[in-house]
Amino acid sequence: MKLRIDGKVSEVRAIWCDEGVVRMIDQRILPHRVEVLGFRDHHQVAEAIRDMAVRGAPAIGVAAAYGMMLAANNGEDLDAAAKELKATRPTAFDLFFAVDHMLARVREGDDPTEAAEEYANTIVERCRAIGEHGERLIKDGARIMTHCNAGALATVDHGTALAPIREAWRNGKKVFVYVSETRPRLQGMKLTAFELLNEGIPHAIIPDGASGHFLREGVDIVIVGADRIAANGDFANKIGTFEKAVLAKELGVPFYTAAPLSTFDLSLKRGEDIPIEHRGEEEVTMMDGMRIAPQGCKALNPGFDVTPAKYVTGSITERGVLRPEDIARRLRGARL
Amino acid sequence: MKLRIDGKVSEVRAIWCDEGVVRMIDQRILPHRVEVLGFRDHHQVAEAIRDMAVRGAPAIGVAAAYGMMLAANNGEDLDAAAKELKATRPTAFDLFFAVDHMLARVREGDDPTEAAEEYANTIVERCRAIGEHGERLIKDGARIMTHCNAGALATVDHGTALAPIREAWRNGKKVFVYVSETRPRLQGMKLTAFELLNEGIPHAIIPDGASGHFLREGVDIVIVGADRIAANGDFANKIGTFEKAVLAKELGVPFYTAAPLSTFDLSLKRGEDIPIEHRGEEEVTMMDGMRIAPQGCKALNPGFDVTPAKYVTGSITERGVLRPEDIARRLRGARL
Repeated sequence: MKLRIDGKVSEVRAIWCDEGVVRMIDQRILPHRVEVLGFRDHHQVAEAIRDMAVRGAPAIGVAAAYGMMLAANNGEDLDAAAKELKATRPTAFDLFFAVDHMLARVREGDDPTEAAEEYANTIVERCRAIGEHGERLIKDGARIMTHCNAGALATVDHGTALAPIREAWRNGKKVFVYVSETRPRLQGMKLTAFELLNEGIPHAIIPDGASGHFLREGVDIVIVGADRIAANGDFANKIGTFEKAVLAKELGVPFYTAAPLSTFDLSLKRGEDIPIEHRGEEEVTMMDGMRIAPQGCKALNPGFDVTPAKYVTGSITERGVLRPEDIARRLRGARL
Repeated sequence: MKLRIDGKVSEVRAIWCDEGVVRMIDQRILPHRVEVLGFRDHHQVAEAIRDMAVRGAPAIGVAAAYGMMLAANNGEDLDAAAKELKATRPTAFDLFFAVDHMLARVREGDDPTEAAEEYANTIVERCRAIGEHGERLIKDGARIMTHCNAGALATVDHGTALAPIREAWRNGKKVFVYVSETRPRLQGMKLTAFELLNEGIPHAIIPDGASGHFLREGVDIVIVGADRIAANGDFANKIGTFEKAVLAKELGVPFYTAAPLSTFDLSLKRGEDIPIEHRGEEEVTMMDGMRIAPQGCKALNPGFDVTPAKYVTGSITERGVLRPEDIARRLRGARL
């Protein structure tokens, strides 16, 4: 992705490994400051995932893969490391997929660094493919709505939901992106709008509650990421996704998820089985360290919601666009 | 309403007149500070409406009535004062209703102060009646969702959407209120939660995007205010209302507006005819004077959305609960 650092636009990834040190852009302080963190053990990586220095299902997976690499290279107990990394966040499936993948590779005798790099490169390559498949759904002049950040920051590079938009833009299609700000942590405003700004793609931030208004005014397609997709096509994603899906269906706007195979959990029959993370209320009641809610008021802060498959037009994957009813058949037995 | 001022709970109105000075609680700085503004001419009142020191359709109406009183008592040109006050905000119908009502009363030779006090008292009395009618819709143990602030602050006293909730609570019914925070200005978080806290009514603030999640988890009734209701029952209200109405219908949750007759504009056939205010983008991109969006990113900020009548179960008014299809017949010819 393009990122403006010290006034200069560079081509960077969200996470990478540099002479044994795992580096990642600190996503908690974007867009106002760009800082790169460096980690030498898997405990630090686990903490970075828990505190959302890195977020977005595919990027969490890559961070966890690098965490397992550090644990292996440092001679740590791999089962304990796997357990620690898996305990950081409950909803995104990529986390569990990546840790299990690394565990298997290292136990098969593969080099941990090579295995982790391969995992990261595979995710990047898959996002590129998602971009190519999804681009065909975007017509010239399309008004697109997205939610939260399913961009390069969430996936190491390209993005999932943003990959088709980037690809359409590169191919010369005119697009306009409605970015819902995504309270409480404002990943839409702070990360997605920032990525689009860096790429020069026309967009506007909207309050989450304005999505219905703009969907009715005229949006051609909604594309969102996913944290976990069950076998029947139900999926969990950032809180606020379910609302957009219901509104899109009601207003006749096509609604797509974009996610690599590592986000599909075919062991779960339906969305009700996906564990939903409930986060601290201070994400709602505080803003940049300042209390914004009345003293004494409580808040509820579910991190994700589940959207039933009946509201989903299709899932954009590296293998093409799948209808919800085809997911189980088309992806059964798929491996990294 | 109950309001905690300097640690002591007092019974106050949002707007009142005190020896010729129009007083109002400054709603821009709640809940952190309680300050009372004082105005001696209608220009100041117009500015207070424009800058949202006072907001909420019925309260805007009362403020405008007091503005007309000041203009009359100060010997100003009443047509010019009416024009100035009407130009402050375009969506809430109470503003136009109140100004025209005062213009007629003063022209009929009535005392401006008496006419304004009567207008304010009538609105307060109507909100009390809305509370009594709406209370019957709330069962013991009800989980209620509301949006923005349609409380005592928005209506001088009692509230519209909050009046039935206050009444149910006073009658000993257990209730729990989901308060959607209502970006960008957070009137749900900063005003509604504050009012409920002062009354001791159990509640939780939720991000706007979490409404769908909680409506599916279990909400018994949604009650919101209204800024203008057309003859067919379509209505304008704070941005984010339309989404809740669609979701409530989809999930089988009854959805009510609560508003006095001064909010019904029977001259408009349908919602598309209601003028929608678009406000400055800095309400979205800034928070308490601090920029939160990336530098260079734009935002869109429609203040209201329009909800078609087909999503509305009923309108709670001082004359009882009306079905959308009965509004025109039941209210035609109604006067203050």
